Amino acid sequence: MTDHQRRMQRKKDVVDERIEKATEERGVLILMKGNGKGKSSSAFGTLARSLGHGKRGAVIQFIKGRRETGEYLFFRDHPRLTWQIMGQGFTWETQDRARDIEAAEAAWAVAKGLLENPAIDLIVLDEMSYMFKYGYLDVAPIVEALRNRPVHQNVIITGRTMATPLQEIADTISVVNDERHAFRAGVKAQAGIEY
Amino acid sequence: MTDHQRRMQRKKDVVDERIEKATEERGVLILMKGNGKGKSSSAFGTLARSLGHGKRGAVIQFIKGRRETGEYLFFRDHPRLTWQIMGQGFTWETQDRARDIEAAEAAWAVAKGLLENPAIDLIVLDEMSYMFKYGYLDVAPIVEALRNRPVHQNVIITGRTMATPLQEIADTISVVNDERHAFRAGVKAQAGIEY
Repeated sequence: MTDHQRRMQRKKDVVDERIEKATEERGVLILMKGNGKGKSSSAFGTLARSLGHGKRGAVIQFIKGRRETGEYLFFRDHPRLTWQIMGQGFTWETQDRARDIEAAEAAWAVAKGLLENPAIDLIVLDEMSYMFKYGYLDVAPIVEALRNRPVHQNVIITGRTMATPLQEIADTISVVNDERHAFRAGVKAQAGIEY
Repeated sequence: MTDHQRRMQRKKDVVDERIEKATEERGVLILMKGNGKGKSSSAFGTLARSLGHGKRGAVIQFIKGRRETGEYLFFRDHPRLTWQIMGQGFTWETQDRARDIEAAEAAWAVAKGLLENPAIDLIVLDEMSYMFKYGYLDVAPIVEALRNRPVHQNVIITGRTMATPLQEIADTISVVNDERHAFRAGVKAQAGIEY
């Protein structure tokens, strides 16, 4: 056995042992937070994976109101997918708190229905964290709905900052940090990369 | 003007100013690194975005040799997409260095051709970083190919650790850190989430 084989065998043993220990089968709550690029796109990539395995998905986009995003154009016609856009644009563009709260509540009503539906395997609550940050939604009923959701349902919530009660009940938390961003170097945001 | 409106107006001013300054139009090199969940899925989400805008994409998967991943099942039939799998399984499962290097070189040959093709808008080099870590590929010719690629071509490279020469030429670097992972709590990896 060569050194390479021994090193790889040890690595395989560690991985195999971990796989053996992970036996619980249930849906997970994944949080994608932090200021780096890749949180929403990660959720959409996982959605693609899930649809690839024949699962059913749903997306609620909070904050982003525009319909010309690449993700929406790409996924909207998929037969096993529901896509809901809050529809008021970025909040710093509307500058109308009452209208934003109304839109947030309507979006949450849709999300709540999905969280009660065992036919939906994966729900993406894109940029939902802003709803708590701005005080547009109360986090308690959302935690309750997440706790009571169907046991095999997976949920991904994205956004820069995450409300503490969500972090307490999450199974997986990934923090995306921005080490460098092309935008800061003067490169224009482009279709297919940033939106 | 209410406090809310003032706050949102300030936020909008900052965003607008940043947008005004970012005027350079060109493709970017994005690195997704770190030990957290979401690097490859982020690349696939960006791919969906890009295809949604009518662009052409290509994916080379290093390391992962299996074809039953959700991303492959989902994207493989897309008419504006090329998908190449290195095809030897995880390296710690093959334990054959010579065979791994041969597979890595074959995958790189495909990637190199794509990096010379201006018709491809987005190239995902999934888990390529392991090729450098294990010494399967030399980073210098890859840096050269990346530097010389068509000006509007975007490239995303994923993997836990990134070779320094790649970090030096990257436009955007996101670090995905693992704050918590369901796997460590004993939850089994599931189709549509982990693969």
